[in-house]
Order: sequence, then C-alpha cells, then structure tokens
Amino acid sequence: MKFYTFLLASGLFCSTVNAQSVTDSQQVARITNEVLLNGTAYQNLEYLCKKIGHRLSGSTAEAKTRNWAVQALKEAGADTVWLQPVMVPKWTRGAESLQIKKGKETIKVPMLSLGNSEGTKGKVLEAEIVCFETMEALKNAPETLLKGKIAFLNYPFPAHFPCTFDGYSEVGGNRYNGPAIASKKGAVAFVIRSLSTGVGSYDLPHTGVMSYGDAANKIPAIAIGNAAADSICKWVKQDKLKAALKTDCGMQGEVMSYNVIGEIKGTTDRYITVGGHYDSWDVGEGAHDDGAGCVQSIEIIRCFKQLKIQPKNTIRAVLFANEENGAKGGRAYADSAVAKKEVHTLALESDAGGFSPRGFSLEMSDTEVRLVNSWKKVLLPLGLYDFDREGGGVDIDPMRKKLNTPLAGLVPDTQRYFDVHHCEKDVFEAVNKRELHLGAASMAAFIYLADKYFN
Amino acid sequence: MKFYTFLLASGLFCSTVNAQSVTDSQQVARITNEVLLNGTAYQNLEYLCKKIGHRLSGSTAEAKTRNWAVQALKEAGADTVWLQPVMVPKWTRGAESLQIKKGKETIKVPMLSLGNSEGTKGKVLEAEIVCFETMEALKNAPETLLKGKIAFLNYPFPAHFPCTFDGYSEVGGNRYNGPAIASKKGAVAFVIRSLSTGVGSYDLPHTGVMSYGDAANKIPAIAIGNAAADSICKWVKQDKLKAALKTDCGMQGEVMSYNVIGEIKGTTDRYITVGGHYDSWDVGEGAHDDGAGCVQSIEIIRCFKQLKIQPKNTIRAVLFANEENGAKGGRAYADSAVAKKEVHTLALESDAGGFSPRGFSLEMSDTEVRLVNSWKKVLLPLGLYDFDREGGGVDIDPMRKKLNTPLAGLVPDTQRYFDVHHCEKDVFEAVNKRELHLGAASMAAFIYLADKYFN
Repeated sequence: MKFYTFLLASGLFCSTVNAQSVTDSQQVARITNEVLLNGTAYQNLEYLCKKIGHRLSGSTAEAKTRNWAVQALKEAGADTVWLQPVMVPKWTRGAESLQIKKGKETIKVPMLSLGNSEGTKGKVLEAEIVCFETMEALKNAPETLLKGKIAFLNYPFPAHFPCTFDGYSEVGGNRYNGPAIASKKGAVAFVIRSLSTGVGSYDLPHTGVMSYGDAANKIPAIAIGNAAADSICKWVKQDKLKAALKTDCGMQGEVMSYNVIGEIKGTTDRYITVGGHYDSWDVGEGAHDDGAGCVQSIEIIRCFKQLKIQPKNTIRAVLFANEENGAKGGRAYADSAVAKKEVHTLALESDAGGFSPRGFSLEMSDTEVRLVNSWKKVLLPLGLYDFDREGGGVDIDPMRKKLNTPLAGLVPDTQRYFDVHHCEKDVFEAVNKRELHLGAASMAAFIYLADKYFN
Repeated sequence: MKFYTFLLASGLFCSTVNAQSVTDSQQVARITNEVLLNGTAYQNLEYLCKKIGHRLSGSTAEAKTRNWAVQALKEAGADTVWLQPVMVPKWTRGAESLQIKKGKETIKVPMLSLGNSEGTKGKVLEAEIVCFETMEALKNAPETLLKGKIAFLNYPFPAHFPCTFDGYSEVGGNRYNGPAIASKKGAVAFVIRSLSTGVGSYDLPHTGVMSYGDAANKIPAIAIGNAAADSICKWVKQDKLKAALKTDCGMQGEVMSYNVIGEIKGTTDRYITVGGHYDSWDVGEGAHDDGAGCVQSIEIIRCFKQLKIQPKNTIRAVLFANEENGAKGGRAYADSAVAKKEVHTLALESDAGGFSPRGFSLEMSDTEVRLVNSWKKVLLPLGLYDFDREGGGVDIDPMRKKLNTPLAGLVPDTQRYFDVHHCEKDVFEAVNKRELHLGAASMAAFIYLADKYFN
C-alpha cells in the first residue's frame, strides 16, 4: 500500500458534540497520547516474561513476581503498595510422558497434564484408548466400554465463530468436566484434544484447569495437540491402540500467596479496582495470559499520575494471585472489601489478552449500562465500539456477588488468543507494543469516565 | 484466562430483526463458516510468500506470480481467467551501502534506496549530513545550507494516533516529496528516517516510493531505520558528520506486465470488482502488502463457487500489477473498462494488510453510503463497525475518476501494519490465519450484499 486516505474518524473536535463530551474527548486524547507515546507497559511485560517467566501459584517465580510488581507499582507512582495475603493451592507438574503403542511402533506424543490433575503415582499407566468425537458421546458411553481404558475426547475447537471466545465457551467445559465424567465411567485416564485454534501451535498441547467434581477416582488428565489428536483418531479407527502414560504431577496442599495492590488516593472514600492476574500456567511466559492485564493495570496508575489526574475514587491496580487453578486471589480481595466495608464504584479486569481493544463487556445494572453507552462517541476513536457482551472476569466476579460492584472487562480482538493460550507460544514476542498500549489507554479512558460519572 | 462469559453478540437470529435481514444474516453466517473452516487464502499466501517471495514490477518473480495467480484463480473456480496487458516502470535496486564517517570511525548503516530513486552512477558520493527535524525546516532551509550536502529528514512516525494510517497520512508525503525539495535546494542526496512504528523492526529501513517531481537533478534518496536515525541525529549535534553513499539503483525504462483477472459470470451485464495488488517491494515477502489482498480476493471466488452463490453482477477478482511504484495496473483496468463500456456496480480493494477486519472505507454517493450503513447489523457479528472512513484504494481509484464507480476498501486493524510495511519483516509469519480469513469473509459478505442491493 502506498497512499490510503483515511479521514480522522474520531469526531474529537467536531462541532456537533456538546461541551461536556469535548472535554471528555480531550481528556481521552491526552490519555491516549500519554500511553501510546510514553507507556511503560511493554517494557514491564518484557521484564516479567524474560527475567521471571511463567509463574504458577506457589512457585518461586510467583514469589519473584510479587517483588517485581511491588517495585513496578512504586515506579508507576502508586501512593501506597501492599500485599494482601491469600492461601492458594499448589500444584506441580513434574516429569511427564505419553507414548502411543501402535503395533510394534512406539510413538512419543507431546503432552501437558491438565492443571490440578493427579499423576500416575510413580507408575506407568498402560491402557487401551477409546476415542470420542463429542462430549455427548462420552456422556452416553456405556460403562463397559470405558472400564480400565483411557478416554480420549477428540472434539476440535469450534473455529467458525468470528469471536473465538464463543468457540471457547462451547468447549471449555469439556476440559473442566471431562475427567470427572470419564472417571465415573471407570476410565483410568482422560486425554483431551487441546482447545486451540493454533496454526503455529497446531502440534502443541495447551493446558488449563480441570476438576474431579465428586468423582471418587482422581484419574490423570492430560491434553495433546491437534496434530497428535488427528493421528490418534485415525489410528484408533484402524486398530486397537494402547497408550503408556507417566505423569508425576499432583496437588501439594495450600501455601501462602498474596495479591499485590497499588493505589492512588482519591478525594472520596470510594474505590475503583483495575486488575489482571499475575499467576500463569507453567508453560510459555504468561505474556497474554495475563502478564498483559497486569502491566496494563500498572500503566493506569502511571498514566493518571503522569497526567496529574486526581480521581474522586481511590484507584487500585490489583495484581491477583491464583486465577488459573483456584481463583483464590479474587475471592480474597472481595472478602477483604466486605470485611472493611469498602464501597466499590466499579471493577475492571483485563484477562483476554494484550490484543487491539474493541470494547468492554459489562456486568452492571441497566441504568449503568446506559451510562457506559453514553460514552460511545468519546471512546470510538480508540476503536472501542463493542459494549454488548456480558461479564467482567474471573477475579472481579466475587465483587459482583458479594458487593454488587458494577463490573467491566476489556474486550480485545480475539483472533490470535487461542493460538497461544495456555501453551508454550504465550511469550513476550507474541505481544505487540501498540496493541498492548492501546488496550491500556482504553482502560485508562474507561476508568477516567467511570470515576467521573459513576457513583 | 480460564472462563470468560461472552454473550453471542451477533443478534443473528434474534426476534427483533426483520425477515430480510434474517436471510442476509444467515447468508453472511454461511459465508463466514465457509471461509473460517475451509478457506484457502492462508495456504495460497504461504505459496506466494515462500515459493515466490517478493515481486517487484518487471522482475522474474513478478512473472512467476502471474502463473501462480492464474492457477490459483482456476482452482478457486473462476469461470474465466485472463491477463490484461499493461506497461509498467521497471526499477532495480542493485548493490547499495551507506557509511557514516564519524571522526576516525566508519559506521555501516542498514539502508534501503527509496523506490524509483536514481543511484550514485557507479561512484561513492561523500558529503556532509545536514539534519532536519521537520519537513517545514527542510522547506525553509536556505540554499546555502544544503548546497553539496546530504539532507537528512529525521521526523519520526507520529505514534500517538490510535489509527496508524492517520500517522502515515501525516508523513507519507515527506518520503514522496522530500527528495525533490532537497534536490532543488542543491542537496546531493536525501536520507529519510523510515516511516515505521516498529519495535521488532526498529533498526530496519523501510522503503517506499518517491518522486523527483519537476526537480532537474535526480539525487539518490534512501531510508534508514529508527535506531540509525537516532544515532545520526545525536552525532550531528556533536560534530560535523560525513556520509559515504553508493547505490546502483535506477529506472530501467518500461516493460510489459499484466493484471491477472478471474471472474464468475453474473446474470446481468454489470460488474463488481474485488482486488489487491500482486507486485510488492523487493524486501520481505510482500505478505501483508499486498499478498493478503490478493489471496483474499481469490477467496471470494472460491467461497461464492463453493456455496453456489449465483451473483447478478459478474464478480471479478483482479490482481493488479505495479501498485507500488507506478499504479499502472489500476489505471489500465479502468481504461479497459471505459473502452469496453463496462458498467461497474462496485469496486472493493484490500490493501491495508491481512489483519483483523474492522469495517470498510467508502467512496460513493450519500445514498450509497446510507445503503451500506443499513447492513451494519448484518455485518457487526464479524466485528465490522467502522464505515466512516473515506476512500477505496490506489488501484480502484481510477474507476471512481473515470467511471464514477462506487468504491470501498477493507479497513483492518492498523496497529501492526507499519511495523512490517515495506521492510524485511513483511513475511508470511507476520500474518495470522484467522485474521486473514476473517478479512476475506468480511469482503465476501460485503460483496454478497452489494451484489444484492446495489444497482
């Protein structure tokens, strides 16, 4: 492309908008300028990813992350920074391997145990694989079919939805609930085709949390990549197929962790929370999930301080502990707010990746939804148009339930998220600086408006 | 992120929309499914980038591309495929080097001659560098200052616009017109800081077309990367700085080229054109610029054929020749349409990268703009909301001027475009499959609606 005429579609200073929205538009433009030109979210993310790396709850890296986060929040200009204690489950992976025995051949298959899964107790588990093409087929399988076998759920990520989260919503439950269903039918292990749209990550396993529910037998549960799933599915149709699985993973009880909180004092005794979670799965670098949300939240503090925006509400950036395999950090934060009788005006979460922003999901009263929608013209220049989705996010959800806090979630572009989600491709290089910073600017603008108009 | 509740915001089948838009929505959903699940644009792009590579007008690779394109259009199911001759300028780069002489040090600086620039005629051009921080400063410089010197324009890409094309619009003219201005002031060469938002490409030069206008002296014009520009700017302030430049580039006259055209026959004698340009700069692989637009255009043919959509208009996928350094292909196409008295209902171009789509720019009558805006609800599920920008694209622009054809241009997300634009980072790996295909689906949906409602 050589020349391409775009009109400035912002309408920032067009004559038809009223005086109030001109002022808001100007402030949003100031915020956007500041973050796009001087933002430090990207360099913070580089440090987090490259100097610390992935950081599962209870790990040494998780503790290191807290030290970094305290420092980063102070450098951003937070008036106060502190740690909020919370007990979190500790799960460790250990060595793991999966081998497929196909006739006389033994084929090693890349795999990842699902989070919170138990292992094979030091033994090699060897059993026949039974393949299911849908969750329904697994649910309806007779017990005789699965007794002593390995249940393999080969349902692919539904790729036809324009929004990949619509696909993920359809299959997320398969990974979470599949192991319990298979266990109750007598299966000795559960294997799932990864929830992945990946081209670059087509061969890679993607992990994620699972639950045994009320199943008595905690069978090992693992994920394999799309390519391996395709092969196994084909082989099973040709002949009986055995797998040899060894995984040393397992729960190690509970340990002390902390939410990391930094705040700018407001002029009232009310609060606005903006956050992401700093724990990650133990593969890749947790760059999009959710290093991005953490550094964006820190950036809100930096931006407000730099622009000398004095909020009415105390603005808290919260880096939540333990979202991935327990969601204990979010619960502890809400519990503390209840105990301290804090009044929370709004909570905003960023936990859908550091991609180009498109809007905010909302979980609030109809009146509040209308109020947010009245900001549309002011937010459109940032590419924010989508306010129709519901929900806030896992970590702020308890604030809705316990405090009736209005919630919002950053809605970034979703096309690349499930290429990298919970797999070794979720690294710093997968994040684009401008996309990350435009997301942070969007969040800062949203919080500026919420601070001004919510009460 | 673990679970994130998104409502299906599409409203595809919600009860409040009328019967007509239900039908259109269903057809748009069919198109989207087909392209996201079975699209071949991504594998076509891989072939184009990896088996052919970059393809400047008049090069051997450009000729190879035509053979590939004819084949790809046939495989997509085009009823007819043909070549439309067009004379194009041939420019070649040759060897080139830039050395900065700083005291006793000689520092080699990565550089790219600007497209259509003349070289140093086999000699090494050695002269002092004069640095300008703005185009205004260059324009206002006294001739005595520049006589026999190298003019260096160090104006950075304006990064504060949420839409990067707004930044590019501000500085694109610097590269195009800068050499003529410098030449008229007696400069012996022109050096520009690359028009780049790059982090990954921060050190890389980005090329692009320039013009000598009516300047008598065709001085060499080159681009250097941001990092080199920062250094040179710093050094110039410390001491006099000399550069030694040698470039063998230059115009080689005109050669025969061709637009590649494939079409599906309509039921009327009217036409809809959808296209991109298949030439590229001679660095990288021309993946986003504009391999993406080419394979998306081919995908429209495949999708319509696959879904047995019989259009009223003959749908033409046009792979234009020579957009980058002449725009001759687009002009030849319009001239041919005028000569054949063709009636063109609409022309759609994709030449802003294969990123996640956000809308369409429009250049058409107010009535037609209102018609397109009436499709908003139907197109929103694909993330298309932005119909407020003006323009179609360089290659279809002559159709507006000569035939008054209504124009539209795909508007993708712009955040990553100027990281890779016209530099060696514009390779297949920089394109995401889902983003590319969602763009193609958006174009197919737009053309489906235009075919139905435009006349």
